[in-house]
Amino acid sequence: MSDTLEQLSAHACFGGEQRFYRHASHAVGLPMRFAVYLPPRALAAESADRKVPALLYLAGLTCTEETFPIKAGAQRLAAELGLALITPDTSPRGAGVAGEADAWDFGVGAGFYLDATQAPWSTHWRMESYLLEELLPLVTNALPIDGARLGLFGHSMGGHGALTLALRHPGRFKSLSAFAPICAPTRCPWGEKAFTGYLGPGRTSWGQHDATVLMENQPLAPYPGGILIDQGLDDKFLADQLHPHLFEAACSAIGQPLTLRRHAGYDHGYYFIQSFIDDHLRHHAQQLGA
Amino acid sequence: MSDTLEQLSAHACFGGEQRFYRHASHAVGLPMRFAVYLPPRALAAESADRKVPALLYLAGLTCTEETFPIKAGAQRLAAELGLALITPDTSPRGAGVAGEADAWDFGVGAGFYLDATQAPWSTHWRMESYLLEELLPLVTNALPIDGARLGLFGHSMGGHGALTLALRHPGRFKSLSAFAPICAPTRCPWGEKAFTGYLGPGRTSWGQHDATVLMENQPLAPYPGGILIDQGLDDKFLADQLHPHLFEAACSAIGQPLTLRRHAGYDHGYYFIQSFIDDHLRHHAQQLGA
Repeated sequence: MSDTLEQLSAHACFGGEQRFYRHASHAVGLPMRFAVYLPPRALAAESADRKVPALLYLAGLTCTEETFPIKAGAQRLAAELGLALITPDTSPRGAGVAGEADAWDFGVGAGFYLDATQAPWSTHWRMESYLLEELLPLVTNALPIDGARLGLFGHSMGGHGALTLALRHPGRFKSLSAFAPICAPTRCPWGEKAFTGYLGPGRTSWGQHDATVLMENQPLAPYPGGILIDQGLDDKFLADQLHPHLFEAACSAIGQPLTLRRHAGYDHGYYFIQSFIDDHLRHHAQQLGA
Repeated sequence: MSDTLEQLSAHACFGGEQRFYRHASHAVGLPMRFAVYLPPRALAAESADRKVPALLYLAGLTCTEETFPIKAGAQRLAAELGLALITPDTSPRGAGVAGEADAWDFGVGAGFYLDATQAPWSTHWRMESYLLEELLPLVTNALPIDGARLGLFGHSMGGHGALTLALRHPGRFKSLSAFAPICAPTRCPWGEKAFTGYLGPGRTSWGQHDATVLMENQPLAPYPGGILIDQGLDDKFLADQLHPHLFEAACSAIGQPLTLRRHAGYDHGYYFIQSFIDDHLRHHAQQLGA
């Protein structure tokens, strides 16, 4: 293993570059891939040592590091606002754990952005440590990205990841938003399945990875500038899996400002995300001083 | 076979709808899929009988009807301008012709937007008839789209399709543009392979499907309002396959206004397309009176 970043490809995009990387991850113990969009300002600044703020985007079940860059339509406004976009993969791949690819909602493509404590998953499924302790330091060191101006957002399972990681690591992310997040994983089938497998059936540690539980236990509003969540009302996962009303109640109880927009007619996919991506980029840019 | 349009899915997108359809095609003799984006204006108009102008987009080798809708980022501005976007598949599928899927640049996913004259392809590979005589009438009849205000554009093989079909069917399309089109298929490996297979090795009819040859033989500039072509200079297919300079010379010779923009650093993919898609939509909207 080495800290070498291998650039797999780079594509000019709105005057910036959409890059794809692979590296040998210490935290995961396997090669991991991720993508970074660098806006024109960051490329111009590489010689001048002027770093840009960045958003870490966490994708949903079955997605990869390529899903957001090719489907969300985010680069146009990111280029204009001078925001970098960091998009990791959704789980380890190639671990060879028995059954790792048997289900689309557990194992490969379904890391849930936590460190598994249960064998056999605990060896490689360490996405929280990977993101916080390895990927972000690596990216902010290697690229013209300002590690002090990071925002966090995500979709579905990645919305769960965004809300929980932001609450578990106070101060690390200056702005927060989500698309159709899993808001209360201890109380939905996706979360119960994942947490049983990764954290064990005992439920004792589950609340530490549930955005609603975490918010209920905040002493003060952690994001006084507000959290933005968009949710489609024709989302087939809304009733059973997502439960935004529970997170909304938790925010309300502790005085956390939340803009939860419910959109008639919109579903769970990237046509929904691309329709509102600009609002999320502006939300983050405003709080990051981009 | 019936004329029934089967709607496979519909996704709210920027206030409009991204729809996917399947129908039994008479021209091709097989089921065909296509997608349509309807801007908000078209949906509001369905009861009021007010139709919107539309662009027919032809995709490149290996693509499907879904490639452009999910990768090009076109719906944001199409919604604003009130343009519908019609995106067909790139070939028949399921014909069962021996060898039809052996190569990525011939057969399935590689229809080249012409009617094959050679067996066994001539039975189903009839994309020109399919598009002009079947799909466009079907779509303009069934949806709030104005068949008298159609623009045509495409990418790579679909850029070849756009340029050739526009020149072969005068007056049918009011505006024309392309991304990295195959400009002279009779003089490049992709075109020579496809035309040998679909039209026969004799070359006698090849020029009728070569944009440069067709333009050389125009008596008057067919698009006095101008044609827009974007081409990346880091496109790995530029040197051997695309030959935009030949089309440029043909336009120049007959006085056809052409804006051929050569972009340093850009490659052949959809990060290139999404970077310049807005300019193409505005080019068409202006000429279509959108």
